[in-house]
Order: sequence, then C-alpha cells, then structure tokens
Amino acid sequence: MPIITISGPALDVEHKREMASGLTKIASEVYGRPPHHIIVIIHENPPENVAIGGALVADRRPDSA
Amino acid sequence: MPIITISGPALDVEHKREMASGLTKIASEVYGRPPHHIIVIIHENPPENVAIGGALVADRRPDSA
Amino acid sequence: MPIITISGPALDVEHKREMASGLTKIASEVYGRPPHHIIVIIHENPPENVAIGGALVADRRPDSA
Amino acid sequence: MPIITISGPALDVEHKREMASGLTKIASEVYGRPPHHIIVIIHENPPENVAIGGALVADRRPDSA
Amino acid sequence: MPIITISGPALDVEHKREMASGLTKIASEVYGRPPHHIIVIIHENPPENVAIGGALVADRRPDSA
Amino acid sequence: MPIITISGPALDVEHKREMASGLTKIASEVYGRPPHHIIVIIHENPPENVAIGGALVADRRPDSA
Repeated sequence: MPIITISGPALDVEHKREMASGLTKIASEVYGRPPHHIIVIIHENPPENVAIGGALVADRRPDSA
Repeated sequence: MPIITISGPALDVEHKREMASGLTKIASEVYGRPPHHIIVIIHENPPENVAIGGALVADRRPDSA
Repeated sequence: MPIITISGPALDVEHKREMASGLTKIASEVYGRPPHHIIVIIHENPPENVAIGGALVADRRPDSA
Repeated sequence: MPIITISGPALDVEHKREMASGLTKIASEVYGRPPHHIIVIIHENPPENVAIGGALVADRRPDSA
Repeated sequence: MPIITISGPALDVEHKREMASGLTKIASEVYGRPPHHIIVIIHENPPENVAIGGALVADRRPDSA
Repeated sequence: MPIITISGPALDVEHKREMASGLTKIASEVYGRPPHHIIVIIHENPPENVAIGGALVADRRPDSA
C-alpha cells in the first residue's frame, strides 16, 4: 500500500479530486500496482506555518505556501 | 523516545484516550521501555483530504477516512 | 514549495526518475505553480517494516510493501 | 485506511511482528474498523540520528534511540 | 532543499517568525547551504492529540503539548 | 515534547551533533521549555530519492539533496 503525502497550500475540493486522481495514476503506473492500493493524504499548511529562507510565507505572499 | 504517529479519521476525546493508552502499552512492551518514554501523536484527516484508489474518501462514505 | 513524500517498496533509479517527474507534473498543474517549486522525497520501506492487517508484508509476499 | 507510523530504535523481525500485530489490534478496536484497513510502518532510527535535550542518543547510551 | 518539520504546541505568529528564522540559520550553517534552500513547516498539535506515557497532554496540563 | 524532524543530505556525526544541539537550543527558547523536552530526528535522504522540479538530485549534483 504505497502512501503519498502531499503538503502544500490549501486547495478546494475539486482540486483535491484532481490531485488525488492524478498522483494515484502515476504511482499506480510506476509501481505496477492497481490504483486501489495507493493512498493519498493531503496536508494543507496555513501560510504562517511554512517558511522558506527563514521567512514565513505569510510574510511574503499569502498564496505561496 | 519512540514516537507513534497515527493518521486516521476524527476521534472524540474518549477514543483518543483509549488509542493513546493502548498504543503506548504495546510499544512499551515490545521495545522494553517504560511507558513514559513513548509519545503518541494523533492526526485527524478530514475525509476530503484522503483518497484511496484515486477517489476522495469524502466522495465515497464520510466515515471511512 | 509543496512537498510530496511517497512511501512504498524499493524502486530502481529509472523508476524513481519516472515517479519524480510524473508526480511533479501533476502537482505543478493542480497547484498552478512552476515545477521547480515542487519537491519529491521517496521513502523505500523494507517489506519487514510494513504491515497490513497486522501482518508484515515480508510474511505475505515480498513485493507488496 | 488509518496509518500508524512508529519511529524508534532497531527491532528484530519477531519484535516487528509483535509490534505490527499489537498496534493494529488497538487501532482496529478504537476506530471500529476491520484490521485489514490498518497499515503500520516501522521506522528504525540509528542512535546517531536521534537527539534528546540536544545530545545524540549515540553519545548517551546506544540502546536508547 | 533540506526540510525541517517541527511538531509541538500552538505558537503565535511572532514566535513562528523566531522559530523559522532560528531553525533555518542553524540548518544553513550546518549543511553549508544558503538559507533560501531551507524549508520549515510548523505543525501545531492540540493537547488532546498528543500523549506521553499513554496519557493525553490535555489531561495533564494544557500547555505541555 | 516538541519533535523536530530534519530531512536532508547525509551528515557526518560531528555535524549531527551541531545540528541537534543548535536546533534544540532554538526550539527550547521559542517554546519556553527545557532542552530535555525537545526531540530531534535526522533523516538522511540519498540523492536519488529526492527531486526538485521533477529531476532527481542525483542527476543534478550529488551534494544537493
């Protein structure tokens, strides 16, 4: 049961559907396993909880987490 | 300090108590360490953030994350 | 900088290339971010370190981690 | 599909069996899900890769990761 | 792109700034990489989702997650 | 018990000591907790298991994981 965890900015539900479906297709093909063996977990990080170069994303631009 | 992270659907606080206590007991026994060396972290994933077979759990049945 | 972590059985380097490239393409499209903003980390679990239904994958079939 | 990740010192395969089976039983009971819905992943950290209080476990006692 | 994930109790935004900036400085120095190569992700765990010794932090003292 | 996980390229043991000690000091100060409450876990990723922009670090330059 391969597990894909994707950590990034917030997504609406339609984009979550596209993300889960697209990532699962790739992993299924590369591992040579049926799609129902693949789990996807989406983590949405608020921009004040992510930093690049020591600066919070919230302090740079709100959409770049 | 072994760390157990459990990622699943939402739990009420009484079930969190049972989960933390039960998982800690097992890990303490198997590692041969006292219980106060064991940390448990519970992650609750909303059903729209988990997918199996490329389909969001929220689109299947709400209680199966 | 979205981060994709994929945890599954061992892969040879050519399959790692396909996995990284494929997952990055999907995430780039869904987030609407350039590919160089996407990080992929591959975790390869030995089959004796993964269990489904309480039984180690190593005790079932060696290729199903 | 709840996922339990346990991160601690190295285990032999018999202890991995006990850990996977014990943790799965607890999670199955608390979530009210069948055991085959529960995944366990065991991470074994070398003692030089874990620190408590800023000191590597490898520099304290080799068996306490 | 080293990634630092820190999991602990809730922080206000000023403390998040200090945490991100301080952790990034250390990692940049030790890896010998420029700060903009370092990503920090902050996870804030509610005290009822963390346990030590099998007891929820929420059941001990609210500020010790 | 805040937990810091740092995922990056391989380090020798002296750099692991500096990393653990430096990260712990920052977290201890920002959380206002004694250092022995802070855990650090170091994950060393081989360069063929990390990708940026869809290309494996191993295919770019070996020291940039």
